[in-house]
This record gives sequence, C-alpha cells and structure tokens, in this order.
Amino acid sequence: MSSQGVQRRNEVLEAAERLFSLRGFEATSVRDIAEALEIQAGSLYTHIETKEDLLWEILDNAANRFFEAARPIVASDLVTIEKLKRAIAAHVQVITGSASAASIYMTEWRHLSETRRKEFAARRDEYEQMFRGMVHDAIREGIFGDVDEKFATLMILSSVNWIYQWYRPGGPMTPEEISRKITDLLFNGLKRATA
Amino acid sequence: MSSQGVQRRNEVLEAAERLFSLRGFEATSVRDIAEALEIQAGSLYTHIETKEDLLWEILDNAANRFFEAARPIVASDLVTIEKLKRAIAAHVQVITGSASAASIYMTEWRHLSETRRKEFAARRDEYEQMFRGMVHDAIREGIFGDVDEKFATLMILSSVNWIYQWYRPGGPMTPEEISRKITDLLFNGLKRATA
Repeated sequence: MSSQGVQRRNEVLEAAERLFSLRGFEATSVRDIAEALEIQAGSLYTHIETKEDLLWEILDNAANRFFEAARPIVASDLVTIEKLKRAIAAHVQVITGSASAASIYMTEWRHLSETRRKEFAARRDEYEQMFRGMVHDAIREGIFGDVDEKFATLMILSSVNWIYQWYRPGGPMTPEEISRKITDLLFNGLKRATA
Repeated sequence: MSSQGVQRRNEVLEAAERLFSLRGFEATSVRDIAEALEIQAGSLYTHIETKEDLLWEILDNAANRFFEAARPIVASDLVTIEKLKRAIAAHVQVITGSASAASIYMTEWRHLSETRRKEFAARRDEYEQMFRGMVHDAIREGIFGDVDEKFATLMILSSVNWIYQWYRPGGPMTPEEISRKITDLLFNGLKRATA
C-alpha cells in the first residue's frame, strides 16, 4: 500500500472507531463513516472490504496493544507481585490511552461473524490466562491468601476493564493514580488493617 | 389494559429483552420482535408506540428491581458492614436473576433519546449514591481504612456489574457463593493476612 493509502486507511479506522464507540457497530453505516471523512461511500470501498473488516481490525489492534503491554512484564525477572502491579498498570494505560477502542473491545466483539468471534474469544482467554498465571504464582508463593484463583483473576480484570465506562482524559485522576488505587484496593481490601 | 393485553405486552417485553441482549438494540428491528412472537409487525404496534419504548420499559423495570432490592437494606437498622454485604448480595441476585436485562442495563442505555438517557443516568447515580453512603459510613466508623470513597464505590459496583459478562445460570457457582467471594475479596483483599 502507498504511504498515502496507509494514511487514508488509518483515517478510516479512526473514524470507524469513533463512530462504533459512540453509536455501536450496528447503528453505524459505511455511509456514516464516509460522511465523517467527507468522501463518497463508494470510494471508501477501495479501502475496506466490509464494515466487519473495520471492526475486526480495531479489535485486533486493541488485542495487540494489550498483549504488547503485558507480555514483556510477564516474561521479565520481576517478583510476582511486582509483575502483577505493572501488568495492571499497563492494562490501565492501554484502556485510558484509547478509551474508544477499549469500549469497542469490551462490547462490540459480539457483532463479529462466528469464526472471528471465536478467534477473538481465544485471544481474550489467552490474555486472561497470563493474569491467572500471575495470580496462581502469588497464591503458591504465599503472597496472596487462599483465594479462588479464577475468581480473583476475574475480579482484577473486571476492576480494570470497567474503567472505560467512567474514565475521561483530563479527569481528576491520572492513569498512574488509577492503577495504584486499584492495585491497593485489590491487594489490601477495604477493611482497616488490624495488625 | 385487559389481562390478555397485559400478558401479550409481557411477551413482547420478554422477546425484546432476549433480542436486545443477544444482538443489541440497534440490530433488532420491530419486525424481528414480531417474528419471534409469530405475529405481524403491524399488530405489534397495538402493544407498543416505538422500539425505544420497549428499551425504556426494560431499563426502567431493571432499575426498579435494583432499587427494590437495595432500599430496604439501606433503610434497615443493620450495622454498616452487614448492610453493605447484603446490598452486594441483593445486587448480585438481581443480575443473576435476569442476566439479559442486566446486560441491556449495562450497555444499551446509550441508545435512549436524550431526555430518557438523562433520566436513566440520574437514577443510576442515585443508586450509586446509596452504595457510596454505606462506604462513607464504613470509613467514618473506622471499619474501612482510609480509602477513596468514590473510587471504592466504583470498585464495588464494577466487580458486581461485570458478572453479567460471564455468569451463566447452572454454572459452578450459586449467586450466594458469588456475592460471598466478591465481598470477601473486596473487604479483605488478595494478600495473605499478616496479623
């Protein structure tokens, strides 16, 4: 693809991302995307095959960002608790860095055709397994108490994933503060320490 | 409305709820709802004004269920920590009792027209404030540590709201077990107690 072609394709993806996150995938037409770019719907088809291709590319890019942020941390020599803290912070960075892509990632995947939906679910499960592995290690090492491994993993990921619902750039908390507070609450709980 | 009319209207609402939760509001047409009920789309209009009315009624019923479950607990004479535990359990019961309505409540409200969207947001905020009040009391009474009141409330609600994403009736955990595990993790944290 020419560099101009690449640039135009990125513009198309950005417009699709904005509209899918605002209105949802189903409520957005190819014509809407073309109008946002001030081009003809017909000429948009030189850049995409179907509207679902755009959704897939947005989801695929988002999944890549999550993996690229977490994998080096998981593969590092850090102690388990530090890995988990940094993986949570990295996840928060990905979500707050692109809240619209994150909201599509959380809700719009169900509009994929079956084969792609399965592929998406498999990657999401793989990502979840990385977090579960760290939780598993933390329990084995006696850092975490005798908690339900799967359930604890779900709690961690649900706490961070929910951010896309309320986070607004320029709000009162930075992404670093958000991850520090989430980690502190998840690790230490709400109750006053009675040591 | 005649009792037959009420029954038919409930059938319409159930079909709409099922389709909205599976495909999303925008992707569901009035014709789809009529087909699910094996009636003519035209005759469906004797039971509803617009598709958005159905969405509104589903959201309104869901909000009522959340309030009806939590209000008597909040107004009771129980100690704060017990109130919070029971309010969490009641919230989990509402979600697990109707996962499809819960998923619509979490994601499809954004398709409401502006006036209704504001009304929906105001009720959701009011519900959140009930939980925040209990968190506030727990901090003031020294039961909870020096945590960020608003953030802690968000963590509690995000942990319970996320359930609709993975809960399936007949799965390995009962709603009671789910709320007990959530409460335990939220209150005590993941770390081994070092007292």
